[in-house]
Amino acid sequence: MSTDIHPLDQAVALTPTGAVGHYQGQTTQDYWNMVGPYGGITAAALVQAIQQHPLCLGDPLSITVNYAAALGAGRFDIEARPVRTNRSTQHWLLTITQPDQDGDAQVVTTATAVTAVRRITWGGTDLSMPEVPSPAAVPRVPPLGGVEWLNRYDMRFLDGIIPQTWDGRETDSLTRLWVRDEPPRALDFCALAGLADVFFPRVWLRRAQRTPAGTVSITVYFHAGREELAAAGTGHLLAQARGQEFRNGFFDQSAQLWSEAGVMLASSHQIVYFKE
Amino acid sequence: MSTDIHPLDQAVALTPTGAVGHYQGQTTQDYWNMVGPYGGITAAALVQAIQQHPLCLGDPLSITVNYAAALGAGRFDIEARPVRTNRSTQHWLLTITQPDQDGDAQVVTTATAVTAVRRITWGGTDLSMPEVPSPAAVPRVPPLGGVEWLNRYDMRFLDGIIPQTWDGRETDSLTRLWVRDEPPRALDFCALAGLADVFFPRVWLRRAQRTPAGTVSITVYFHAGREELAAAGTGHLLAQARGQEFRNGFFDQSAQLWSEAGVMLASSHQIVYFKE
Repeated sequence: MSTDIHPLDQAVALTPTGAVGHYQGQTTQDYWNMVGPYGGITAAALVQAIQQHPLCLGDPLSITVNYAAALGAGRFDIEARPVRTNRSTQHWLLTITQPDQDGDAQVVTTATAVTAVRRITWGGTDLSMPEVPSPAAVPRVPPLGGVEWLNRYDMRFLDGIIPQTWDGRETDSLTRLWVRDEPPRALDFCALAGLADVFFPRVWLRRAQRTPAGTVSITVYFHAGREELAAAGTGHLLAQARGQEFRNGFFDQSAQLWSEAGVMLASSHQIVYFKE
Repeated sequence: MSTDIHPLDQAVALTPTGAVGHYQGQTTQDYWNMVGPYGGITAAALVQAIQQHPLCLGDPLSITVNYAAALGAGRFDIEARPVRTNRSTQHWLLTITQPDQDGDAQVVTTATAVTAVRRITWGGTDLSMPEVPSPAAVPRVPPLGGVEWLNRYDMRFLDGIIPQTWDGRETDSLTRLWVRDEPPRALDFCALAGLADVFFPRVWLRRAQRTPAGTVSITVYFHAGREELAAAGTGHLLAQARGQEFRNGFFDQSAQLWSEAGVMLASSHQIVYFKE
């Protein structure tokens, strides 16, 4: 174990830039995807901005991130604004901007979020964690593509690994894997937001055909509080995703993430562009 | 059939108030819920604002609506702002404000949305419509509660109707019903946004216990284009919803809406507050 700063902490490090709620970040090569940062790390940075805000009430309950344009390498600016604060919930509007060629700030990402002070109530689940072998019993696979961010996750596939042959054979779009940050890092809301986007495009699996694809909008619901995250620690999460409908250039994906102990920590949904 | 304006059209009627993207609406008793308008009709009004905007590109692809505070009876103001326009997608930030006691505009609702010009591509589904009796074979139930908006929908339950006895017996949270606007009205994006929120709180069904509950944030993904909506016409939609996780004051709900012909028109997710 190195004592260096973890790549995730480096990627979400934000510097206040004066006015309350304004932060500056810096993209890192560690989480680089094809034409911009991995979408999950952008969501993580927005969660960080909320949690770092001096007026933040409670912990993240939900966040929706809309990828309006590819984030370019280098500096980006986050504005996080609590537009309504109630007794136990707080509503946020966020934008990420980068300067265009003329130096004018252009919106590249929008988001809304809700934070909440949670109370202990009755609880129940309607979607139990599937019974699967433990992480130790499943081999870790080498990163599945040529992009850097895949090296930041330890992935152990149980079902629906990326197709070995692109033969166009249709199948269902269900993937299940054990996953955690690499190197291991204690789970927090930033890391969980990042993990919620860890699945390769469902359309690749559904059709065994590669096509350009990218998330347009992702929503993460946090079912866990700090205690459940602390209990998950540096363990793997069971991550499950499937598409529901693929039509005319877009498909949706629904996902769940459970701790090794079988507690659903987050559920997540996204709508994704695909070319053909 | 009356030639009067349909209650839905009346509820989403917006008047431009000068600056581009600024609209004024008026709550109607027709869609009144317990302490404010039915959440689905607020989502519908936001979709209307987008579609009415002179710069709107394409049709709704996704919308996330965050209910920051109860909308009061009377006038409300929508600002709809296209913050990024790409070749075939456009990203929107929206707010609804109402004046407080001092006359200052307060944010009561926030939203983000994406519109898109869709192209014909390969398509597929991983979640087919369940096999159920036709709408004509299922009796319409009288409105299930004392709130006015329920009278605006024709509901025919197949599974998971609201508990007849509040005996605390736990069950799963799955509901399936045929539903359409009442009186019948040709389906469009506004109506579909409204229908996506038509389910009573999952926690009531899961526990057979009434507790105060309210949507905090809803996301709707539109899988249908204008052609599929036109084909659905005034028919019923098969609407299905279930919760996944209920914990510490919040639960999530995932929903799908299919046309009578079995085409998934929309999927939707929400996170909902419940008291105990």
